[in-house]
Amino acid sequence: MFKQLGLIGCGLMGGSFALALKQAGLVERIIGYSKSPSTTERARQMGVIDQAAESALLAVSGSDIVLLAVPVAATDITFRAIRHLVNPDVLFMDVGSTKRDVVDAARRVLKERVGAFVPAHPITGKELAGVQHADVDLYKDRRIILTPIAQTSPVLLEKAHAVWTAIGAHVQEMTPEAHDAAFAAVSHLPHLLAFAYFTSILQQKESEQFLALAGPGFRDFTRIAASDPAIWRDILIANREEILKQSERFRGALGVLEQVLRDCQGEALEALVTGVSHTRSHWRMGAGKNLKK
Amino acid sequence: MFKQLGLIGCGLMGGSFALALKQAGLVERIIGYSKSPSTTERARQMGVIDQAAESALLAVSGSDIVLLAVPVAATDITFRAIRHLVNPDVLFMDVGSTKRDVVDAARRVLKERVGAFVPAHPITGKELAGVQHADVDLYKDRRIILTPIAQTSPVLLEKAHAVWTAIGAHVQEMTPEAHDAAFAAVSHLPHLLAFAYFTSILQQKESEQFLALAGPGFRDFTRIAASDPAIWRDILIANREEILKQSERFRGALGVLEQVLRDCQGEALEALVTGVSHTRSHWRMGAGKNLKK
Repeated sequence: MFKQLGLIGCGLMGGSFALALKQAGLVERIIGYSKSPSTTERARQMGVIDQAAESALLAVSGSDIVLLAVPVAATDITFRAIRHLVNPDVLFMDVGSTKRDVVDAARRVLKERVGAFVPAHPITGKELAGVQHADVDLYKDRRIILTPIAQTSPVLLEKAHAVWTAIGAHVQEMTPEAHDAAFAAVSHLPHLLAFAYFTSILQQKESEQFLALAGPGFRDFTRIAASDPAIWRDILIANREEILKQSERFRGALGVLEQVLRDCQGEALEALVTGVSHTRSHWRMGAGKNLKK
Repeated sequence: MFKQLGLIGCGLMGGSFALALKQAGLVERIIGYSKSPSTTERARQMGVIDQAAESALLAVSGSDIVLLAVPVAATDITFRAIRHLVNPDVLFMDVGSTKRDVVDAARRVLKERVGAFVPAHPITGKELAGVQHADVDLYKDRRIILTPIAQTSPVLLEKAHAVWTAIGAHVQEMTPEAHDAAFAAVSHLPHLLAFAYFTSILQQKESEQFLALAGPGFRDFTRIAASDPAIWRDILIANREEILKQSERFRGALGVLEQVLRDCQGEALEALVTGVSHTRSHWRMGAGKNLKK
């Protein structure tokens, strides 16, 4: 399918993409670049990439598919580094968790070449960052959201569908705006809440005792609080307007529950929790239909 | 070790305790009572109990160990039903997630017989309630918090340690007050937050689309929102003072993060998240030592 994958950013997301393309026989050769030479070297030793490139531009040179797998705040600078080689014979994609800012950067930097870029957000991840955690199955059975714009090349958009589908992912299209609003609600706000909750625990003098006593509910509720700080700094800042709107809604819902507790209204509390518990019990990741039965 | 276990409440917690005692050969016979006759019958058909009792009192009659596995708000009425048979030759325990209210009820109802009751809280659970989800390994490698009071019989307290240890759990003692403060922080508040967050999603007109897009982070963060409404109504109401204190702290921590987002302070945000991410990455359930390295 492709001769050469140029990988810019050899971390968890980029490394897993490289492994998956290789396993599926979709690419002959992988050339990788990372800001840190030790990361690139590790990726080469692990067989995630075949060759290290000395710059992002050199990773693009000779490639017919390029994946930008860098923190979203680095999108602008990465586009600047490679823009002279951006052309519609090459499929360019990213893996960023926010899309409006990425699309803005693409428009701003790539200008009339923006059509070669197909913005992508794979709904997957691990709380463990780094190429050492790269996983050939990271994208398997997961959703990939593509957020094309009017200028996006239909040929490359089709190729993007094909490559993600070929590694076992399920592709769906949205506008960048709808994407960012939805992911503020279902992903970014939960991260903010998990960070805030864990912070409030650590701020108490009994925090060590608390952490020693915590059980499986705590473990799952706080798993995302272990997420990579640099990546989440960028996501939260980039999508802050939508996230703050969602946080406001959340505070409202919390306030209602708090008031019911204060007033000791057991029946009202049970009524509020019953619908939630029922809906969550029947929810399945990636199902999306018939949820409110 | 015991001749007969009297099980009052044949749900997930009670059923799992019965299965574990049987498997470990700690009890010859199990007699069970549930408010709903169909639950008791199901437990009998599943082999969780050997015989159904027609009342809580009859489940205690002839038993040398009794487990109250009912929602915490039912503790008072259950003690009233059995108090005439409460005596220091029998080990009485509960499995409630709150302890001050349970101990208060025991003092109030059992009076001078309160020493026969050893308050217990196993740190385990599932979002799936009911005897059909009973699991012989539910308590294995999990912590059990015992909250004895001055009157608690030392002999029965020792027996309580022995029985939980024999089914693979790790036993620890705390005061009822310290227990309730700690679990408000590490268990009850996360449930309240998960309920509030899920509510705020359901209240939006795009909720179906949101739920269809949600990924593994959302799945884990909201798992506890599927918890049993009646059980959590009781826990949240019983421990509301401590929970509201913890919620106040949480709102403070969330407010700081929101302000940093509003001010677009990427570095400050990263600094705040880094300590949290590091500590959570190194946390292991039940470890409790050397967490802040």
